[in-house]
Amino acid sequence: MSALEQLRDRWRTIHNVNHAYQYLSWDEAVMMPHGGGRGRADSLATLKRLVHEMVIDPSLEALVEQARSEAEGSEWDQANLRIIERERKRASAIPSDLVMALSKASSACEQEWRNLRQQNDWKSVLPLLTEVINLTLQRGEILGECLDMDVYDAMLDEYEPGLTQEFVNPIFDSLVGFLPDFVDNVIASQDPPRKFSGDYSPESQLDLARKLMKTLGFNFERGRIDTSHHPFSCGEFMDTRITTRFSSDDFVESMYAVLHETGHALYQQGLPPEWHGQPVGNSLGMMLHESQSLFMEMQVCRGDAFLRHSMPVIEESLSLKGNGAAWNLDSLSAAVRRVGRGKIRVDADETTYPLHVVLRYRIERAITSGDMGVDDIPAAWDENMRDLFGFELGDDFKDGCMQDVHWFAGLFGYFPCYSLGALTAAQFYKALIRDIPDIEDDFAAGSFDRVLNWLRSNIHGQGQLVSSFDLIEKVTGSPLDGSAFIDHVQSRYGSSN
Amino acid sequence: MSALEQLRDRWRTIHNVNHAYQYLSWDEAVMMPHGGGRGRADSLATLKRLVHEMVIDPSLEALVEQARSEAEGSEWDQANLRIIERERKRASAIPSDLVMALSKASSACEQEWRNLRQQNDWKSVLPLLTEVINLTLQRGEILGECLDMDVYDAMLDEYEPGLTQEFVNPIFDSLVGFLPDFVDNVIASQDPPRKFSGDYSPESQLDLARKLMKTLGFNFERGRIDTSHHPFSCGEFMDTRITTRFSSDDFVESMYAVLHETGHALYQQGLPPEWHGQPVGNSLGMMLHESQSLFMEMQVCRGDAFLRHSMPVIEESLSLKGNGAAWNLDSLSAAVRRVGRGKIRVDADETTYPLHVVLRYRIERAITSGDMGVDDIPAAWDENMRDLFGFELGDDFKDGCMQDVHWFAGLFGYFPCYSLGALTAAQFYKALIRDIPDIEDDFAAGSFDRVLNWLRSNIHGQGQLVSSFDLIEKVTGSPLDGSAFIDHVQSRYGSSN
Repeated sequence: MSALEQLRDRWRTIHNVNHAYQYLSWDEAVMMPHGGGRGRADSLATLKRLVHEMVIDPSLEALVEQARSEAEGSEWDQANLRIIERERKRASAIPSDLVMALSKASSACEQEWRNLRQQNDWKSVLPLLTEVINLTLQRGEILGECLDMDVYDAMLDEYEPGLTQEFVNPIFDSLVGFLPDFVDNVIASQDPPRKFSGDYSPESQLDLARKLMKTLGFNFERGRIDTSHHPFSCGEFMDTRITTRFSSDDFVESMYAVLHETGHALYQQGLPPEWHGQPVGNSLGMMLHESQSLFMEMQVCRGDAFLRHSMPVIEESLSLKGNGAAWNLDSLSAAVRRVGRGKIRVDADETTYPLHVVLRYRIERAITSGDMGVDDIPAAWDENMRDLFGFELGDDFKDGCMQDVHWFAGLFGYFPCYSLGALTAAQFYKALIRDIPDIEDDFAAGSFDRVLNWLRSNIHGQGQLVSSFDLIEKVTGSPLDGSAFIDHVQSRYGSSN
Repeated sequence: MSALEQLRDRWRTIHNVNHAYQYLSWDEAVMMPHGGGRGRADSLATLKRLVHEMVIDPSLEALVEQARSEAEGSEWDQANLRIIERERKRASAIPSDLVMALSKASSACEQEWRNLRQQNDWKSVLPLLTEVINLTLQRGEILGECLDMDVYDAMLDEYEPGLTQEFVNPIFDSLVGFLPDFVDNVIASQDPPRKFSGDYSPESQLDLARKLMKTLGFNFERGRIDTSHHPFSCGEFMDTRITTRFSSDDFVESMYAVLHETGHALYQQGLPPEWHGQPVGNSLGMMLHESQSLFMEMQVCRGDAFLRHSMPVIEESLSLKGNGAAWNLDSLSAAVRRVGRGKIRVDADETTYPLHVVLRYRIERAITSGDMGVDDIPAAWDENMRDLFGFELGDDFKDGCMQDVHWFAGLFGYFPCYSLGALTAAQFYKALIRDIPDIEDDFAAGSFDRVLNWLRSNIHGQGQLVSSFDLIEKVTGSPLDGSAFIDHVQSRYGSSN
């Protein structure tokens, strides 16, 4: 076997253990009975440690060296090698003990958070969260030192390779400069909200979800949908899973959670099969992944063309005819494009969502730089909510700083990817219209083959051949900035001013 | 850390990887979409290889040596060490490549079998099965040589340590000498079968299943029930899972599958928590495990006392009142204790079940000894069916030699455990009546605390402290033989002669 083949073999083994990690995490969130938590956390920590040890195995050094010349003919092999070297460099810096400790601490904290959040109990979760964040910072400092980067940059880089504060700051500044006033105007000119009455049983909503997923191109031979506490997606290209949750008095939130996760899932299902099991065959960072979910949810599925096609499908699945004249394309559009200043990030519309992210970004930077401690989070939350949204949370931790799983699970530096993903989605959509000007006629006709092919060949099928930033430039013709997003919200919401 | 603690630590890691293997297998059977098969097989094979490598790690040799003297004070530690040495001896004999090859071949064969069985396609499955059996025999030969045992004994010993053909032969001979005529007589004196009409929707049957599981003591905080192609149970004491399947025109089969799997699950949920993650904290071999499922299913739950309690529960869950006078304790008893000569092992009643096992035992021995080849299986099947049941299958492979997953999954030497488990269950039940003579009054009153406590302290909580054979003798006062089983079937079915 050539060094290249041996290396591929080693990474296939690593992939096979990551496979286990991934589906056990799915099981934990979707299937596992409460009592299984402790044993599952132990198993996941062990798998994480084994992967870590396999990645940093010193015997790989020579193989990588040899493989480099063998890879010269193939850009895919070269990219694969580049990612392997990146993974090895990062992993080698972190001691195995820290990997295990962080995995266990964040499993324990996340499991407790689920209950304590219900009870609005910030005080009890604080020591657990402090431990997780301390370990996360320890990890960040080690990474920063090894990569010669600022600590928070090293964390950002983990979720989206190449992402830095220097890149994020001006973009977020421009959003903060534009959005608050824009949102004010949109809200002032909105009609009062309207709800539709219908059959919102889980069975009917699931039936609708499956129909829409199928329409967008989700392959049920290679995936499934379930319910969980929070919607998420996971899995490999051969077995891609999404989840949602159902409200008993409305369908919009759940339906768009499904469309969002379907966007993620289509990315996974479209990865290059011939590179399955190798790093270069994986999806890119979280910014790019989020761009794919938001491309479907926000750009395609909240647009008029999609609604025109799906209105009769929704009407039939959820028995909405009884609403009479109140149920029409205008009222449906208004319901799925409603803007509002809310407390909850995951419930936010696309114009206020970035403000939620900016808030978290500011707090993460302050904690990482040592400017504030974990126990200052509630005060900082209120201060930033007042600044960006005009109201405070006070003792409502549940819907304030305890609302998101991320920090409790040790994910620091992840939030910016959500909003950068939204910006990327807008820029991709603009490029799609440039490439296929009449694509929205397809959507109105319920045909999603051309858009899926466009995504498959331009994005999904590219794996990690180039970085997210290079891919964006390649597909859209310019580097990522916020202009396409601002154009998009102005054209979608500005007309109502 | 003492050597003993280090060794426990190593086995905790092994346990954590086995945990992953176990729940991924559950996922494969219950949740995984069809397309995920290949990736799952690869991941499972990798986990199996990693465990194998960790078990045979030469650095453990010295630790085991040192730990032996440290363990002297504790019989649990001594037993733990004994099992570790046994595992190491067996695993060290088998090359890692063979472990991987067998895991992959049996995953592939099992996945194909699912489809080919539906199509009654013996010819297409034969090459896959031949490969699996060849690799299984290769494994058996290596084990036999290493343990200085006959090949088939080495295979039996794998599923129930200490089990030999010398032990099995006279017991099976006595069953073959007794059962066929006995079955003839029972069948001749039976009333024609009667079915009840009711609400057999999956929801209602699941509702009944949960109620009965709860009554028997299944802890839903630490377990769950789902549906799958074939009923099975799996999982650790903190997260024990069972499955069943539902027929749309009868409830008896599914209900007793649930009660059977609940017996397995109660064993798992009752294992000693303080030894969780160590070999001595695991359940004993498959014979003993099967004794626990059959204890519940056959001894407790097909008896009159249990039926008296559960009849109104069944009636309510499945809306059986509409059957009028036809629905009564006698007709219910007759339905759950019906004897018949069928083709399918898993559908067999307790009097004909052992004959199905004897048939498989004969074929396994013949193949292992080289007296017949894999392609002779259909002919051997018919010959033995004629001898033991009085009819043949001919080209009906689906309900003949393709009916069980075992051979296609590489399980050779497993079948005898089913019938020995039935014998053990009868012997345990006799000991229960000796210890708590009025226990059936509890059952009739729907109270299962005393029987569960008896099982917990005598069997479940003992882990692998002593062997199955020693445990049986300790609990019942005599070595395992077939007499309690024969007494049991005579007293339960003989009265109708």
